[in-house]
Amino acid sequence: MSALDPTAIQRGLQSIPEWKLEQHEIVRTFAFSDFVSAVRFVNRVAEKAEAEGHHPDIDIRYNKVRLALTSHDAKGLTEMDFNLARSCDATLKADQ
Amino acid sequence: MSALDPTAIQRGLQSIPEWKLEQHEIVRTFAFSDFVSAVRFVNRVAEKAEAEGHHPDIDIRYNKVRLALTSHDAKGLTEMDFNLARSCDATLKADQ
Repeated sequence: MSALDPTAIQRGLQSIPEWKLEQHEIVRTFAFSDFVSAVRFVNRVAEKAEAEGHHPDIDIRYNKVRLALTSHDAKGLTEMDFNLARSCDATLKADQ
Repeated sequence: MSALDPTAIQRGLQSIPEWKLEQHEIVRTFAFSDFVSAVRFVNRVAEKAEAEGHHPDIDIRYNKVRLALTSHDAKGLTEMDFNLARSCDATLKADQ
C-alpha cells in the first residue's frame, strides 16, 4: 500500500475529526473514567490491530490512552491508518 | 509514603538491575516475540498495578513495552515504585 498524498490525507482527516496530524502520524488521546476502563479499551484496539495486521503506538497514562498511527513500510500515512483510526473510534462509541 | 533519598534509590536499583533511573522515574523496556505477547504482559502488569493502586506509564511499540514508574504524590521515587517494578519483573519470569 502506498503513502497517501496531502489531499487524500486531508480528506481522510475529515472522516476522523478527533484525530490530529502530527508529522507523519495521526494521533488521538482517549480519556476514560479510570485505569481499568483505559486498559479495557486498549485490549479492544489490540484485537482490531492484530486482525488488520496494523499496530498503533499505544501510550497509557492512567485513564488516558494515546494512539498514534502511521505506515512505516510506506514511509507515510496509508488507507490502513485511516481505517484503523475509524475502527478505534467505533470501538469507543460501542463502549459508551 | 515519602520519597526515597539517593542512597535508598541506589539500594533499590540494585534489586532491579534491568531498570534504569531516568530523572525521577525508573524505566524498563521489555521485548516480546510479537504484539499479542506484549499486550498479554501489559494486562498482567495492569492487574498488579490496579491491585497495588499504583500505575506505571505504559508505552506499547509492537512487541516492546516500556514501563516508567514514579510517585507523583511524593514528587519522587518511593518503595511503591520499587515494589511494583519487582512485581513486573516477576510477572515476566513467570511467563517465560
